[in-house]
Amino acid sequence: MNESTRIIPVKRVDDEVIILDQRLLPSEVLFRRVDRVDEMVDYIKTLAVRGAPAIGIAGAYGMYLAARNCPAPETLEQTIFAAARLLGNARPTAVNLQWAINRQLRIFSRTHAEYDGPEAACQAVLALRDGADAILAEDIRLCRRIGEFGSTLLRDGMTVLTHCNAGGIATSGYGTALASVYVAQEEGKTIKVLADETRPLFQGMRLTAWELMNSGIDVTVICDNAAPFIMSQGKVDCVIVGADRIAMNGDSANKIGTYGVALAAKAHGIPFYVAAPHSTFDSTLSDGSGIPIEQRPAEEVTHWRNCCLAPPGVNVINPAFDVTPGGLIAGIITEDGILCPPYSDSISEFLKTKAER
Amino acid sequence: MNESTRIIPVKRVDDEVIILDQRLLPSEVLFRRVDRVDEMVDYIKTLAVRGAPAIGIAGAYGMYLAARNCPAPETLEQTIFAAARLLGNARPTAVNLQWAINRQLRIFSRTHAEYDGPEAACQAVLALRDGADAILAEDIRLCRRIGEFGSTLLRDGMTVLTHCNAGGIATSGYGTALASVYVAQEEGKTIKVLADETRPLFQGMRLTAWELMNSGIDVTVICDNAAPFIMSQGKVDCVIVGADRIAMNGDSANKIGTYGVALAAKAHGIPFYVAAPHSTFDSTLSDGSGIPIEQRPAEEVTHWRNCCLAPPGVNVINPAFDVTPGGLIAGIITEDGILCPPYSDSISEFLKTKAER
Repeated sequence: MNESTRIIPVKRVDDEVIILDQRLLPSEVLFRRVDRVDEMVDYIKTLAVRGAPAIGIAGAYGMYLAARNCPAPETLEQTIFAAARLLGNARPTAVNLQWAINRQLRIFSRTHAEYDGPEAACQAVLALRDGADAILAEDIRLCRRIGEFGSTLLRDGMTVLTHCNAGGIATSGYGTALASVYVAQEEGKTIKVLADETRPLFQGMRLTAWELMNSGIDVTVICDNAAPFIMSQGKVDCVIVGADRIAMNGDSANKIGTYGVALAAKAHGIPFYVAAPHSTFDSTLSDGSGIPIEQRPAEEVTHWRNCCLAPPGVNVINPAFDVTPGGLIAGIITEDGILCPPYSDSISEFLKTKAER
Repeated sequence: MNESTRIIPVKRVDDEVIILDQRLLPSEVLFRRVDRVDEMVDYIKTLAVRGAPAIGIAGAYGMYLAARNCPAPETLEQTIFAAARLLGNARPTAVNLQWAINRQLRIFSRTHAEYDGPEAACQAVLALRDGADAILAEDIRLCRRIGEFGSTLLRDGMTVLTHCNAGGIATSGYGTALASVYVAQEEGKTIKVLADETRPLFQGMRLTAWELMNSGIDVTVICDNAAPFIMSQGKVDCVIVGADRIAMNGDSANKIGTYGVALAAKAHGIPFYVAAPHSTFDSTLSDGSGIPIEQRPAEEVTHWRNCCLAPPGVNVINPAFDVTPGGLIAGIITEDGILCPPYSDSISEFLKTKAER
């Protein structure tokens, strides 16, 4: 499998925006056309589209849909800002969503100001379409670069443990965490993956296992709670996970359970890496304490499809993310290289080069 | 709720042996009559009866059933030893099962040798019945004592996190880990419990939550992988879990995931306690490396009832237990008091007093 055959979970085909409905995987592979911004918001909220980079791309295309469907040019500005609010509130933790929306808002404002009357609206729609396409194209390039740097950490025969799905379908085909594995495979290395099942929604068992098997990579699913035991048996060479938001000191929000994996990796001397493009960094946060943690419905824990596993009415706490302190992270794999501690230096240096471009 | 109203998951009513079928909880509360030893083996293997002390009691009653059903007195000895092997192989990790079987074998041999002919068989059946009753009665007393000692660790308003089900239905009504909470409640303290759901079979969500709600105790279910995050928020005052086998240095086998909870508790300075009666200690093992870890079917992870969540044919590793090093355990709550490190001293001292009785 190479770049051209990878599944892209959010894309444009002619004038249509298409998403892979990840709620149905692995039993059904269904692509859906998204016609309206409120549909896109719903798909993001219900995790039909998920993964920090992918929801950034989805947010960008959502802005395009809002503009395209706006019936009256004179209401376009109002429509665009309303769409930005709607999309921005769909999920709170991943910063890529707000990053993509803000980038589209800047494109809109710039283009809209350049033209007059109906021409302004028309050009703004095209600019938002191109802006979303650019975010997608950039993500493909960045993920591939992340994979190239990450692959340097992997030797032939190694076993990588990962949590949740930071793979192709969480991004634009290559993934962040899994990009290292895919590039290593392209380079001829045999890498095995241990995939945490990732409760409550089983993204590891349903999605990571599915996409790795599709790519011919040896993957073994374990319950999240088995990872420390498997590590204690010497069966894990390194951990690579994605991230939804990274603060300036390296504190990284990612799927609930990531923090426990990092603690266990530390206890066993196993290096723990985070893989993410620059859009995942939040320069406004000095540390992870300010990252909003999404609380999701109890039913995600107590039910699977129509089957209830819990006593009726039981209390549930269902945080969707946790924060792994930078101190537990051996390196952050970005498109420009692997950032090392102390992160307060390496991250600001990295982001400075981004701002300068 | 007090001692007399607690649910006993394995018991004798007149000449019938009755078990609570825990596979159906919490949606159905079904007690089944067990007629034959092979039925009991199947109930133990399929976790209709589970929990280290409860499967010890079930093993003891299984020996009684084997004797009771033996058609010819001259084959009784052979039947009993075959039953002991069959029951002993039902599950490998919990030592209480083999402990109870060995105790019944000693009772059988002693009784059988005292009498001649058919009378020997008849007396042996009665002795095995009384032997099983005694193990049950003893477990009720020991769990209550464990609860009394454990309750001294709990102050009004505290929140206890537990993993799996080491409650009433894993024992004889009070539990090991949960006994502390029940006794604290009887003493007028308000204790909250956070119950790890406990993948793959959800004993925490299905069983612990159910029995605590039945007892009027405030319980909140979380995904196993959320425990480290919840601890990082200061919401856990202590951890209490049960055990399936404890080596002489305090290394404790318990449900898969316990080790990760212990690592997270250590990282947050939260005391981590193990609660178990003397029958859970294995004096033949100097440390946990010799504890056999049961591997269970992949389908426990990939399926829930008839619903498959994984890509067909994916590799799965499904260890049912892990081993928490004694060094992570603040104390082991027994029926004679709370054992403290260094465990190599305190455990051998404790077991010596048991042997002397």
